Amino acid sequence: MIAGMFEFELRASDGRARAGIFRVPHGDILTPVFMPVGTQAAVKGVTPRELGEMAANVVLSNTYHLYLRPGDALVARRGGLHRFMGWPGPMLTDSGGFQVFSLSAMRKIDEQGVTFKSHLDGSLHRFTPEKSISIQENLGADIIMAFDECPPPTDREYVTESLARTHAWARRCRDAHTRADQALFGIVQGGIFQDLRARSAQAIMEIGFPGYAIGGLAVGETKAEMYPVLAWMDDLLPRDKPRYLMGVGDPRDLLEGIARGVDLFDCVLPTRLARHAAAFTHDGRITVTNQRFAEDDGPLDAECDCATCQHFSRAYLRHLLQAGELLGMMLMSVHNLRFLIRLVADARAAIFERRFEAFASAWLARYAAGGRRA
Amino acid sequence: MIAGMFEFELRASDGRARAGIFRVPHGDILTPVFMPVGTQAAVKGVTPRELGEMAANVVLSNTYHLYLRPGDALVARRGGLHRFMGWPGPMLTDSGGFQVFSLSAMRKIDEQGVTFKSHLDGSLHRFTPEKSISIQENLGADIIMAFDECPPPTDREYVTESLARTHAWARRCRDAHTRADQALFGIVQGGIFQDLRARSAQAIMEIGFPGYAIGGLAVGETKAEMYPVLAWMDDLLPRDKPRYLMGVGDPRDLLEGIARGVDLFDCVLPTRLARHAAAFTHDGRITVTNQRFAEDDGPLDAECDCATCQHFSRAYLRHLLQAGELLGMMLMSVHNLRFLIRLVADARAAIFERRFEAFASAWLARYAAGGRRA
Repeated sequence: MIAGMFEFELRASDGRARAGIFRVPHGDILTPVFMPVGTQAAVKGVTPRELGEMAANVVLSNTYHLYLRPGDALVARRGGLHRFMGWPGPMLTDSGGFQVFSLSAMRKIDEQGVTFKSHLDGSLHRFTPEKSISIQENLGADIIMAFDECPPPTDREYVTESLARTHAWARRCRDAHTRADQALFGIVQGGIFQDLRARSAQAIMEIGFPGYAIGGLAVGETKAEMYPVLAWMDDLLPRDKPRYLMGVGDPRDLLEGIARGVDLFDCVLPTRLARHAAAFTHDGRITVTNQRFAEDDGPLDAECDCATCQHFSRAYLRHLLQAGELLGMMLMSVHNLRFLIRLVADARAAIFERRFEAFASAWLARYAAGGRRA
Repeated sequence: MIAGMFEFELRASDGRARAGIFRVPHGDILTPVFMPVGTQAAVKGVTPRELGEMAANVVLSNTYHLYLRPGDALVARRGGLHRFMGWPGPMLTDSGGFQVFSLSAMRKIDEQGVTFKSHLDGSLHRFTPEKSISIQENLGADIIMAFDECPPPTDREYVTESLARTHAWARRCRDAHTRADQALFGIVQGGIFQDLRARSAQAIMEIGFPGYAIGGLAVGETKAEMYPVLAWMDDLLPRDKPRYLMGVGDPRDLLEGIARGVDLFDCVLPTRLARHAAAFTHDGRITVTNQRFAEDDGPLDAECDCATCQHFSRAYLRHLLQAGELLGMMLMSVHNLRFLIRLVADARAAIFERRFEAFASAWLARYAAGGRRA
């Protein structure tokens, strides 16, 4: 292990909110951080250069997708994911577990692993903890994830039964992992149940990882159910390791997560919304194809510093999206990603200045008020 | 009229090939030039910044499309097409005639104009020469085109009958045109028939325009039929005005056109091919999704200076295109456009150095040899 690598330096805190630096081989990750998702080794509609310009710090990619196409061995022969996709900064890959359960045409789980059919061609495949780690070592991201099961978070019986398996798999992942230049994160499950979260955190921390993910959330439970889990996790997890809330990207959830001690976030939401003509603004989300923007010469958000807001009007973006032009999706994606990256960077600055709560509550109030007007 | 505006300065010639400068309000056009097409006020998959970086000199947009959506009056209220789409350089709009004949669900032609149904919603519209000019004045491009009919080039009877109408319409366009900051080009028709081309050139030159287009080609005739027409046009048209061959973008046709005195070209081919995984290379056209590129770490073209070839491999592009990623279409479009822009710029340099014929024949031989190997 390289000296200082995977150290998490907590630089400031404000209430539960934390600002830190997590050092990985391809750069320093300044937390809290929002990570754009490049599902198939590409952030949809955005070039690596644009990611750099919007100050994206970490890019996530999906093990399930890359394993199926183009294949992790092929990526390894290209020199790994960074080189393959031309992204020089930090990267994270997930374990493939979530997509196996959400995307595959069929899956059958046993204690050793999961057998599933590809959503692409129906071909039969099998993931085990060892296989997931092997794929992620081939891909070569800076942070990789333990292979776990993501059960329905409100189904106490299922969640309970699933925990032992997730914990056994976490240990097997740690045992299988060989690359010293990758940080393997453990994942805490337990649904929305405080005792199960505590039991899972205990088991995962006993194995010991350089970072911990909060799994099994943002998959159907309400926000009122999700937020308390984050506070419990803040009490349970060690302060000197980064915490990653998987699959969360609504701007309100980012602030609520940061307020409860979360350091890393990822979500496809900004690029998916972009392709469906929805843009984040400080005054709530807008649907740019709405008739009321047809002659609006202003930018998507007057305070946004993204490349789209510097050069293009709502009227033009509306036209592009109405006309189905690729450029519309591209420009919207740049805006939505930069909006979230900057929100989290602003939150980080507020933590250093011990004014996070005031920042977050003012931000959320304005966002909600705009949403009511829209 | 601004002094010096719309002057065409012939700077060098080599055989029939010409190199010049055409001065328009938004910049100097260095000819010969290939113009990327931004059909609906956007070059598909490419940002204005990328167009600037690939040294695109002029961008074309389509009157028919913009009239239907978002509407030329709306574009005028936004300050015109340049400002609307964020392209600060020279622009050209066509007359809408070609799309009325090729795209509309129904069209009925009479001596006064054309009545047609929108391909978008079936609504009924009417274009006349005066209407086309009015739309193009609203859009505000530097170069605008006379409204003409584009008949089947090998149907002598139809072409003959159509000529009188095209000539009458050209005069009406000139009479209707009021903006001194736009150059209105006349269009010579006549299909593949030498006597009809001569008759049409005579009629259009009598009206008098600052530039002339060669219309009605690249719409179904063979290359063996097209190339002689270009040579006839070189003999017929004045040397001190630019000549524009509409809708031509195959690299071989660009060189053959330049060899016969053509100055301006446009075509959707590079971006359309890009979206279908085809890339230009010096050794012929390649289909990047081909299995043989799966592990090819080289760029699309080893001699290309485009942003795509500087940063991405054939293997990565193949993966993106196989996976249907937007980024694949974006990166391929940048390459194909830059490839044609650079080819024409290299041809221009060769004309200045009086080695155009050697340049073109070597280029065409290598392109053809690669095509045979592919």
